[in-house]
Amino acid sequence: MKPIDELKRRLLEIAHLSSALALLHWDQEVHMPKKGGASRALVIAELTGLIHQKLVALDVDRVLTKLQLAVKKGTLKGKDKVIVLETARTFERERKLPEAFVRDMAETISKAQSVWATARAQNNFTLFRPWLEKIVALKRKEATYVGYRASPYDALLDAFEPDMTTQEAARILHDLKDFLVSFLKELQSRPQAAKQRLSLKATFPIAEQKKFNAVLASEIGFDLAAGVIEESTHPFTTNFHPHDVRFTTRYRTDDIIHAIGSTIHEAGHGLYEQGLPAEHFGTPLAEAVSLGVHESQSRMWENMIGKSKPFWRYFYPKLKKQFPEAFGKITLEDFYHAINRVTPSLIRTEADEVTYNLHIIIRFEIEKELIEGSIAVRDVPLIWQSKVKEYLGISVKDDAHGALQDVHWSAGLFGYFPTYTFGNLYAAQFFAAMERELPVTALLAKGTFGPVREWLRKHIHSHGKRYTAGALVKKVTGEPLNSRYFADYLKKKYRDIKK
Amino acid sequence: MKPIDELKRRLLEIAHLSSALALLHWDQEVHMPKKGGASRALVIAELTGLIHQKLVALDVDRVLTKLQLAVKKGTLKGKDKVIVLETARTFERERKLPEAFVRDMAETISKAQSVWATARAQNNFTLFRPWLEKIVALKRKEATYVGYRASPYDALLDAFEPDMTTQEAARILHDLKDFLVSFLKELQSRPQAAKQRLSLKATFPIAEQKKFNAVLASEIGFDLAAGVIEESTHPFTTNFHPHDVRFTTRYRTDDIIHAIGSTIHEAGHGLYEQGLPAEHFGTPLAEAVSLGVHESQSRMWENMIGKSKPFWRYFYPKLKKQFPEAFGKITLEDFYHAINRVTPSLIRTEADEVTYNLHIIIRFEIEKELIEGSIAVRDVPLIWQSKVKEYLGISVKDDAHGALQDVHWSAGLFGYFPTYTFGNLYAAQFFAAMERELPVTALLAKGTFGPVREWLRKHIHSHGKRYTAGALVKKVTGEPLNSRYFADYLKKKYRDIKK
Repeated sequence: MKPIDELKRRLLEIAHLSSALALLHWDQEVHMPKKGGASRALVIAELTGLIHQKLVALDVDRVLTKLQLAVKKGTLKGKDKVIVLETARTFERERKLPEAFVRDMAETISKAQSVWATARAQNNFTLFRPWLEKIVALKRKEATYVGYRASPYDALLDAFEPDMTTQEAARILHDLKDFLVSFLKELQSRPQAAKQRLSLKATFPIAEQKKFNAVLASEIGFDLAAGVIEESTHPFTTNFHPHDVRFTTRYRTDDIIHAIGSTIHEAGHGLYEQGLPAEHFGTPLAEAVSLGVHESQSRMWENMIGKSKPFWRYFYPKLKKQFPEAFGKITLEDFYHAINRVTPSLIRTEADEVTYNLHIIIRFEIEKELIEGSIAVRDVPLIWQSKVKEYLGISVKDDAHGALQDVHWSAGLFGYFPTYTFGNLYAAQFFAAMERELPVTALLAKGTFGPVREWLRKHIHSHGKRYTAGALVKKVTGEPLNSRYFADYLKKKYRDIKK
Repeated sequence: MKPIDELKRRLLEIAHLSSALALLHWDQEVHMPKKGGASRALVIAELTGLIHQKLVALDVDRVLTKLQLAVKKGTLKGKDKVIVLETARTFERERKLPEAFVRDMAETISKAQSVWATARAQNNFTLFRPWLEKIVALKRKEATYVGYRASPYDALLDAFEPDMTTQEAARILHDLKDFLVSFLKELQSRPQAAKQRLSLKATFPIAEQKKFNAVLASEIGFDLAAGVIEESTHPFTTNFHPHDVRFTTRYRTDDIIHAIGSTIHEAGHGLYEQGLPAEHFGTPLAEAVSLGVHESQSRMWENMIGKSKPFWRYFYPKLKKQFPEAFGKITLEDFYHAINRVTPSLIRTEADEVTYNLHIIIRFEIEKELIEGSIAVRDVPLIWQSKVKEYLGISVKDDAHGALQDVHWSAGLFGYFPTYTFGNLYAAQFFAAMERELPVTALLAKGTFGPVREWLRKHIHSHGKRYTAGALVKKVTGEPLNSRYFADYLKKKYRDIKK
């Protein structure tokens, strides 16, 4: 067998085990009975260990080394070259982390997550503090193992947004912050549109909501013969293969807008996964470029499309028809204004399009300094409060609504938060490029989502990791990632709404 | 690490991977989207291969050999001895089958099952014939690899009902056949009870049925915090761990009796799995004794309890209350007669308690002779027809209602069918023993299922494979497996009904 084919064979084995692992996680969130948790954790640990072993064994008989040499010599090119380089990237990272460290990290975050849940429920940062300190110490150690050029945060960011540097991220987010803080003040100084708050007294039966959401996901192109929609407390998307992509959404009987937003968001992720090239399954060519680009797909569908006027010009009559009691007397205009209301709030996951990124920037600034060692864990709550006051203009009432609100840090996810904002920036930049080629507004207003989806598929989904995120955004939009398009998008949208 | 602990460690690894595999199968039947099938098959193959590798590696460093020696010398006793002997049994079987053979078999049955489905749909035995011939040849080869004393069928039967021999099985089933054929004639010669056929014109909304079935399963003791009930075309039970046991049932809007029977049946299997000792998970001490004993638990709950008068004395008022339109005017007596109607029919899965075992005996006699080489596959349809005529007194209209009706042979399951009937015999024998110790009728009529379930747990479930099926039935009932108790049970029940 040629080394490249041997590598592909090994990668496919790993991909199959990873599919099984993804199913174990999915089932745990969606279907597993309460008492199944303890044994499920052991099954997950077993399979995770096996996958790690197989990853580390990728270079057995120097298969990977030989292929890397062939890339250097220029004898291996094109897609195979990408497979080798991207696999080597994963392999190097996996190889550099000693098994004892990986085990320590896994055990720590497993325990820390339940401590965090209690700490948040009891609004008690002190309870969580020693755990967060241990995690920060471990993440700093991880950065040392992995290696980095300028900041240890580079090594962590790289796991989620490959090739992005701390310096570049800081520059982009700083620009964005300057714009957002002043833009938010500008919006708040204008008189509020009168009917921006919908007071829906109706109830929305879950079964009815499910039907509407399934139609919605399916109309924008999520293939239900290659996917599943379920319910869970925290909506998420997972994939076992491009032909089996699953996401969850969350329903409240007193509010359908929430479920719709969550469905379109997750369907956006799902469309990316369904759009990856199945023929390359197992290789990096069938994997998403980066978390940022992944999030660009969900945020574009959720906000730029799913909260746009033309989109609702098409869907609002359907919503009215299915829920006449709730929406019968509300005009499209009022509905549109209501779903685009901007109000600074304390909880990230409930934030609007404008303030959302300020929440992210606060987390980025804090976690970067934690990892660089320039602030201490004990100071986090106060720093959090002062940043919220400064950027959002509101006061944090307690840590449960402040530094304790997100699960990420307790799960060891450092370098993850900024990818949410990169997602918004990529989305705006891609969307602007798409608008140069397609009459997007007209298509959305007619409910003709095919060309939009196919544009995304052609320019983004189908490439997998063929290009790095940085190369892809330049290839598709002609520019490196920046905040200008997103700022322009917000200005245009809210100028229209608030006038 | 002591060899016995090393063995337990290896077994636990295998058990965890087997749980993941069981989830992959469960999800495939219950949740997987249509297009996910192809990739799922590869994931299942990968994990199956890994489990096989780990099974074969059980004796690495002669861990198992040393332990077997310790058993022989008498230095290893009690539960550890059972773990070693039962593991060795599985290991030997696995080791004896060459990998090429296992692969050939897996591929053959995977293809054969889809050919069978087409053949049944088209009522075309000739289409399936070459595949069945190949499978029979492979199963005969399997018997040679595994080894046997008197009949090659021994080696196949042993996989499902360990230690049962072909000769013993033939003797038991022959006795039963003699009784059933004459008993059926006797029943048919008596005048039919007038109202034995319910004509239910009502419709039963699935959501309502689900509620009723969940209550029912839960009342007899199926723990929904350690289990899940779902829907699938062919009801089945699976388990990932005694704390995560799942079964499916099937609903028809025009008939609730069907779903109830299927739910109680599968809940009976589920109770067995939930009753296995979790502290021994991974070892044979937390595995069911045999398919026959497993089936005894489902059939006892489904028929001996779930189709008994006292059971419905308790549940019928509840059924009437939830479905007043359907059952409001039907007396308990009439309902009881209707669910216990005896009529020879062509399809095994729709057969009543009396004729069911004749269906099984037909299959046993045919498959035994196929494996022993005394009949040919091409003759199966005719032999089938003549046996149905002889035992059940009716004519097979076509092969779809004859030799093509069951999936088992296409799935390579030879030696499996008789365990269904063993299940009925074990059930009657266990039930008689239970009745000697507990006032079963009175308990059921009060809906007090706890003592019944606990009796089964104590005497059967909690032992896992501590005793062989043969030893267990003697320990619990004082006699080896025989058909007398089942015959007595039928005589008593139907004497009462038909008089």
